[in-house]
Amino acid sequence: MDWKSSITKVEPNHLITKGYRQQDLIGNIPFPHVVYLLIKGELPSKSHGKMMDAILTSCIDHGVTSPSPMAARVVASGGVPLPSAVAAGILSIGDAHGGAIEKGARFMQNGVKRMTDEGCSIEEMAKKLVAESREKHQRILGFGHRVHSEDPRTVRLFALADELKIAGNHIHLAKAIEKELDESLGKKLPINVDGAIAAVISDMNLDWRLGKAFFLLGRVAGLTAQVYEEQTRFKPMRKMFSVNCEYDGPEERDVKKMSDE
Amino acid sequence: MDWKSSITKVEPNHLITKGYRQQDLIGNIPFPHVVYLLIKGELPSKSHGKMMDAILTSCIDHGVTSPSPMAARVVASGGVPLPSAVAAGILSIGDAHGGAIEKGARFMQNGVKRMTDEGCSIEEMAKKLVAESREKHQRILGFGHRVHSEDPRTVRLFALADELKIAGNHIHLAKAIEKELDESLGKKLPINVDGAIAAVISDMNLDWRLGKAFFLLGRVAGLTAQVYEEQTRFKPMRKMFSVNCEYDGPEERDVKKMSDE
Amino acid sequence: MDWKSSITKVEPNHLITKGYRQQDLIGNIPFPHVVYLLIKGELPSKSHGKMMDAILTSCIDHGVTSPSPMAARVVASGGVPLPSAVAAGILSIGDAHGGAIEKGARFMQNGVKRMTDEGCSIEEMAKKLVAESREKHQRILGFGHRVHSEDPRTVRLFALADELKIAGNHIHLAKAIEKELDESLGKKLPINVDGAIAAVISDMNLDWRLGKAFFLLGRVAGLTAQVYEEQTRFKPMRKMFSVNCEYDGPEERDVKKMSDE
Amino acid sequence: MDWKSSITKVEPNHLITKGYRQQDLIGNIPFPHVVYLLIKGELPSKSHGKMMDAILTSCIDHGVTSPSPMAARVVASGGVPLPSAVAAGILSIGDAHGGAIEKGARFMQNGVKRMTDEGCSIEEMAKKLVAESREKHQRILGFGHRVHSEDPRTVRLFALADELKIAGNHIHLAKAIEKELDESLGKKLPINVDGAIAAVISDMNLDWRLGKAFFLLGRVAGLTAQVYEEQTRFKPMRKMFSVNCEYDGPEERDVKKMSDE
Repeated sequence: MDWKSSITKVEPNHLITKGYRQQDLIGNIPFPHVVYLLIKGELPSKSHGKMMDAILTSCIDHGVTSPSPMAARVVASGGVPLPSAVAAGILSIGDAHGGAIEKGARFMQNGVKRMTDEGCSIEEMAKKLVAESREKHQRILGFGHRVHSEDPRTVRLFALADELKIAGNHIHLAKAIEKELDESLGKKLPINVDGAIAAVISDMNLDWRLGKAFFLLGRVAGLTAQVYEEQTRFKPMRKMFSVNCEYDGPEERDVKKMSDE
Repeated sequence: MDWKSSITKVEPNHLITKGYRQQDLIGNIPFPHVVYLLIKGELPSKSHGKMMDAILTSCIDHGVTSPSPMAARVVASGGVPLPSAVAAGILSIGDAHGGAIEKGARFMQNGVKRMTDEGCSIEEMAKKLVAESREKHQRILGFGHRVHSEDPRTVRLFALADELKIAGNHIHLAKAIEKELDESLGKKLPINVDGAIAAVISDMNLDWRLGKAFFLLGRVAGLTAQVYEEQTRFKPMRKMFSVNCEYDGPEERDVKKMSDE
Repeated sequence: MDWKSSITKVEPNHLITKGYRQQDLIGNIPFPHVVYLLIKGELPSKSHGKMMDAILTSCIDHGVTSPSPMAARVVASGGVPLPSAVAAGILSIGDAHGGAIEKGARFMQNGVKRMTDEGCSIEEMAKKLVAESREKHQRILGFGHRVHSEDPRTVRLFALADELKIAGNHIHLAKAIEKELDESLGKKLPINVDGAIAAVISDMNLDWRLGKAFFLLGRVAGLTAQVYEEQTRFKPMRKMFSVNCEYDGPEERDVKKMSDE
Repeated sequence: MDWKSSITKVEPNHLITKGYRQQDLIGNIPFPHVVYLLIKGELPSKSHGKMMDAILTSCIDHGVTSPSPMAARVVASGGVPLPSAVAAGILSIGDAHGGAIEKGARFMQNGVKRMTDEGCSIEEMAKKLVAESREKHQRILGFGHRVHSEDPRTVRLFALADELKIAGNHIHLAKAIEKELDESLGKKLPINVDGAIAAVISDMNLDWRLGKAFFLLGRVAGLTAQVYEEQTRFKPMRKMFSVNCEYDGPEERDVKKMSDE
């Protein structure tokens, strides 16, 4: 029954989080560094802190049409408090929405590990991984985007990772896979923002199981703005979409009352 | 049917949020400033940005026993993905948990407005407000804490607001109310972190309707850590509490089948 | 710290809910009667049980375009487990979606109470209420529908309430208000399903604070079907809507880096 | 962009669900039969409808200590609307809470299929499955309970399945596994309510992917009662638990401000 927790110690007039007094963190340590502290247990180096900040901003928003803002706005239109609508947006973060960070990071971490185990170069590993995925008819997660042929967030995250000397084998492998996909498949499947974050957090030695968490922590800012805009600019229950939905269920029919009910 | 949104413009390889290219924001503008931008439409001054950062950190976590981490951990113990558990924590942010920011800010903004309308000083206004609340047997929200007699987060937020020259009539009124509560009621009801944030955002000219949002945006970091800890340190369905629950419903009885069913 | 609960007593091999052994309820008492039992503490009469059953079915589904199924399907498209998507649908049940049951029931219960207090007939009360709402420019909740001029669910619920001898002052008042709205405003604002349920639960002496609960308890069946259909017929992240969204935020602009950051 | 849906056709004054006019379903077809209709597309036989009703009631509630009511009550204590609190309860339904229905049903359906493929009897199959799970050190889901040595809900569901002539190979296999676990492991791991429902829905030829849905559809009734009780009997933010939580994070330490920030 007794719990243990390494997060916060609560005593009268005294709050310790991961060893630090909260009043020492507030206004002295940038919030994204505090996020890193909460997850890793230690404050980040300056470069890792800056990278964490960049990751959060890269996830904030991608317009109204992705599942998370859409869900948040639809729920807001029911006339509910802001947290309920933001929570609905967060619920849509799943294997298909933001989920490529988690799976992509695991994939790349596994790839880098195999490079050592199998004694091969980054380019050779990329070739192997692409060949294997073609054989198994599986997509490599984190590549391709329905709108962007070169995602501006990826470009910026990778430039920053270079600048901050964070870029290592995982980012290099991601770039090699992108090149190999282009060459062997003949189609451009650029690294998308999920794939970029997957590679960056891998080079930062962060746990891939937190993949959805990083997306969530940045996205919640955009969701708050989306819900606030919905609540302040539009009426509840407004007609949001003209969905052209064809009914293809059973033909109209009569209920036959069951004999003895 | 046509929507308008002032948040993000999405074009191929080009993402504009509140006028700024996302690649220009990422890693150049601190995330808490981006949060401010998303809500207000403009980047904050350096002091307002720093204050926003401090507000977010002041909300991260207060141990496992408050409703939001408790809900998040209980839900995590059902064996669900991290976003579902974090969302459950967010759902608990309501009128009684984080809600004093919203109501407190509205109360103080109204108080400051009345100072001008009624031509009275901060101290006179504080006296009026405390007297009125006593008469109506209503608590003034944002004062008193079950653990702290002097909340270290309040102390730090107010010191920072002074340092950054943000502190104005709303913070002064909050302090005057605290003093008046002490003098007229004879009991210490110190400004808690909700009350402090309510006063600070009022002096920053932020919308009181976003009160729960500020709490949520900081708390989501702590909730992520709580869920991650639950998922990595404990087994699903662990016995979390020894709730001593007395059944006081009807005595055990027989079902009488209804005559003709 | 000690709890009291009147719902279920748990002992080894022995589960008592509201006094009844669960094994005696299972398969002997219809589920809608069990719902009534859970809320009221007593099993319903046969007619009240049948009416509760009818209320639940009247809330199941109204196509894909209302907020609850829309939110559920959007969230499902993120690739999440069924309960997360169903929960998102439930979150949209708010003041503007299903909320008219709660507010409508309170309104009608208050109206019926005033009939006695003010010694007036149902028709006189309806006239007063419509006049008052016109004066205050407030809509009477539970009247009017964007699709139906005569909601088939309302017709059926009221016919059943007559048949089961449940119909009383609240249903009569609802009908009188509908007539008065037509006569004094000259426009048809037919009682919608929310208004019908509000009147029926009032005549059943059920708590108006449970208004959203009745809607939720029936709607959850439709939401389950919606999510199941989305998960089995469509791919995750499918393009669900062509939202024509105009960006009307600030013009594209450059970030000016703050001097000393 | 065009949707297809087999659930509900909405036309003015005309609502068709799975072929039936809603006004024909309301009050004529028991709600649990409507649930079955929504999921399977056809109304159930009388026996299957009765079994569905029994399944829903068997899931309603198991006291306050399981994750779903606990999460619902904790969230309710934040002072939020009923649907938010009920949704939080639903979010806890996961692989470890209610999830054994889904996995158990898949397991048993696979077992019954193998009986034919491998030409073996129910008892032989049970022996194989138990031996395999021991070898892989995997629990067979749906067996064992922390409170009950003979779950009264299982006993009742299986008796009803016999009575309604629904019991077939899946229920028989479940019972054979229970017996084999006892004989080969020497410890009683009785079929719990999840395992019982898994076997029953398999004999009803229902989709195992809906395992969590059946639990959810019954549990939502109990959650509504739990939240209603919390909201009407207790104050928001009441101290719900005395969690004895030991802080085992880093020792108290000073923040070292980064040199150039």
